[in-house]
Amino acid sequence: MNYINATKAEKTALYSELRKQYDALCAEGLSLDLSRGKPSGEQLNLSMPMLDNDCTERYIAQDGFDCRNYGVLQGLPEMRAFFAELTGIPAKNIVVGGNSSLNLMYDTIARAMLYGVAGSPRPWCREEKVKFICLVPGYDRHFAICQSLGIEMINVPLLSDGPDMDQVEALVASDASIKGMWCVPKYSNPTGITYSDESVRRLAQMKTAAPDFRIFWDNAYMVHDVENEGDTLLDLFAEAHAAGNGDRVFFFTSTSKITFPGAGVAMMAMSDANLALTLPVLTVQTIGHDKLNQMRHLAFLPNKDAVARHMKKQAQHLSRRFTIVLDTLKQDLGETGIATWTEPRGGYFVSLDVLPHTAKRVYDLCTAAGVTLTKVGATFPYGVDPEDKNLRLAPSYPSVDDLSQAMRVLTLAVRLAALEALLA
Amino acid sequence: MNYINATKAEKTALYSELRKQYDALCAEGLSLDLSRGKPSGEQLNLSMPMLDNDCTERYIAQDGFDCRNYGVLQGLPEMRAFFAELTGIPAKNIVVGGNSSLNLMYDTIARAMLYGVAGSPRPWCREEKVKFICLVPGYDRHFAICQSLGIEMINVPLLSDGPDMDQVEALVASDASIKGMWCVPKYSNPTGITYSDESVRRLAQMKTAAPDFRIFWDNAYMVHDVENEGDTLLDLFAEAHAAGNGDRVFFFTSTSKITFPGAGVAMMAMSDANLALTLPVLTVQTIGHDKLNQMRHLAFLPNKDAVARHMKKQAQHLSRRFTIVLDTLKQDLGETGIATWTEPRGGYFVSLDVLPHTAKRVYDLCTAAGVTLTKVGATFPYGVDPEDKNLRLAPSYPSVDDLSQAMRVLTLAVRLAALEALLA
Repeated sequence: MNYINATKAEKTALYSELRKQYDALCAEGLSLDLSRGKPSGEQLNLSMPMLDNDCTERYIAQDGFDCRNYGVLQGLPEMRAFFAELTGIPAKNIVVGGNSSLNLMYDTIARAMLYGVAGSPRPWCREEKVKFICLVPGYDRHFAICQSLGIEMINVPLLSDGPDMDQVEALVASDASIKGMWCVPKYSNPTGITYSDESVRRLAQMKTAAPDFRIFWDNAYMVHDVENEGDTLLDLFAEAHAAGNGDRVFFFTSTSKITFPGAGVAMMAMSDANLALTLPVLTVQTIGHDKLNQMRHLAFLPNKDAVARHMKKQAQHLSRRFTIVLDTLKQDLGETGIATWTEPRGGYFVSLDVLPHTAKRVYDLCTAAGVTLTKVGATFPYGVDPEDKNLRLAPSYPSVDDLSQAMRVLTLAVRLAALEALLA
Repeated sequence: MNYINATKAEKTALYSELRKQYDALCAEGLSLDLSRGKPSGEQLNLSMPMLDNDCTERYIAQDGFDCRNYGVLQGLPEMRAFFAELTGIPAKNIVVGGNSSLNLMYDTIARAMLYGVAGSPRPWCREEKVKFICLVPGYDRHFAICQSLGIEMINVPLLSDGPDMDQVEALVASDASIKGMWCVPKYSNPTGITYSDESVRRLAQMKTAAPDFRIFWDNAYMVHDVENEGDTLLDLFAEAHAAGNGDRVFFFTSTSKITFPGAGVAMMAMSDANLALTLPVLTVQTIGHDKLNQMRHLAFLPNKDAVARHMKKQAQHLSRRFTIVLDTLKQDLGETGIATWTEPRGGYFVSLDVLPHTAKRVYDLCTAAGVTLTKVGATFPYGVDPEDKNLRLAPSYPSVDDLSQAMRVLTLAVRLAALEALLA
């Protein structure tokens, strides 16, 4: 039934029926969680051979360096070569970090605040105002970095093929205080969409009023296809260099969702000019990151093919869960007219838009029934979803049974909240 | 022979004789290095059992947490308990980091610049000037952090029992722009001295003009005795709390020179008020550091006793080398009156003061003979030793034979440079 066109009597009757189902589920005392965008233990087990073959006899790098000792600030040459093969970015432009690409991102913006970047008239902390474009819905941890550092966030819609580029181009061309922009270009968090080639080209080529504008390209889901035929993403690093805007790009990725989220290897990449300003600060900050963990990773995943084979196994796990989410949404909400959702071919999330001004109510109904959702508003700067409609679903962590159960609760809550709003 | 009192003829004859010895050594084409303050491979081998027992079956923390996954920002409870036992600081005040305490130190000052600390009227980057007291000779990487962030450094002598506290007290009481001070309180880099109880108490109790003055207490050599009877250091964290100045202390240490410099575990500790301001920034910067490496460390070194046993083995290795350095200095320079040096009971360095205005010449003579020394001036802010007399000797890394050979070249260079100066 299409709820929007239904009569009041139909809606009232339906509400009462759904409410009974909901109350029954509440009585079951469920405790389920759809909020955790992290791999399950089952997925992590796929990487355990990395620990089996540990570094007891493998601590000397290809160039003879003893990885147990201090040094190698930019990361082992073989680890940089690995990431170069994976990303298409030259190894000389790659810096290997610790276990967290978020840490590299935060530090990169903190450095911009304290020192500026190539082309900055002054450190960003000496600017009267610094603004970032934030694509919405987006990743809460990106927004939290801006908020923590007092960077003003401007919402721009993320469309099904990438950023609303007309808006982005108009904003960056006219406002020199817009210094940056967050992007999760492949299997975006939370909508799961991948930027079209045209979006990437326009980002590479657009004119910016700020001489030191930077795109923070968080390619967290680079190799994280769930469907057999994954999305492809144009190489912004190369496109920006071709357009003469190579300094525009700070690229980030990690093995957090390839091997272990808590003990992976992160990397960033940047142009020669950016690197020339960054390395002198990095060398003051640390003598070098954990190279034994780099060796561990290289022994387990020596190249792109090995990564692809490994990610196929992870995809099997995720694919079952995405199917449950999408099938339930289709079955329960497909004809209601009260919700839309994305159908990603990879990544970790499905984004669900419910009837405007009902997302918080859905959240509360789910909570009351023992199902934890990502906090409403988390996908927007300052935690405020202006339309109160977006919900981020994270299917990777729960068991298949738990996920099915949680999805039943969720779609009931979506329908109840919509009927309440329509009947009000 | 005492060179200072020698006749010109004596000095000329001696110079010519020593020069012959030096030229002969130059002809040998040596390639030796006294500059590297890092453990030798032999020392690192002592920690290899840590990798033998890896995490294949030990990745679940005591509270059931899967250490492979995201989370646990402040570090595993058992790792914090370990550091609490080692340092005497309450576990609740401890934050476990990645592999580098230098990284924790840099980040702590960067945070102070961007956000201020407890009691700051404003972020330090908004102050007209920020100054730090730097004890000299001291650790170049501390000075490099200040220089990188535009913090002005004020030299204060490090005496044989700690900082020149009269100078320190006078400076911090009168100048509110002095916001901090670097200390390596035990087996100081490079002099190897340990602060007296009185020094520590005065640091804990002194009045400061700045409401947000901080002591950066880099206790890198906490358990690094070389002699059987090591130095003892009063607990600044406790003393400062007792004096009502608990917020004054940022404490740092790591296992870098206990297990592996490149893959150890670092920690910092701070008062409740400091922690309350720090954790909200840390949670924006990272989801958590490598907990598998914490588990590895705990399996290998579960407690303070295990650490003490392990460090005894390291001491055997270092003790031989310290003996060579000190015996050679005594033998070759003991009666010359042209040099003084420290005789540390632990740590990684011996500090040698040569005749003023001859250290650079000594460095050059050593370089020409194939012996690399730590750069002259490195032990002072801005790389400038005002008296050009301090040399840092790092005996841990070379083999015993190489070290003996290098020391012979060094003492020859010291004598030649002194005679050149005295004859000029």
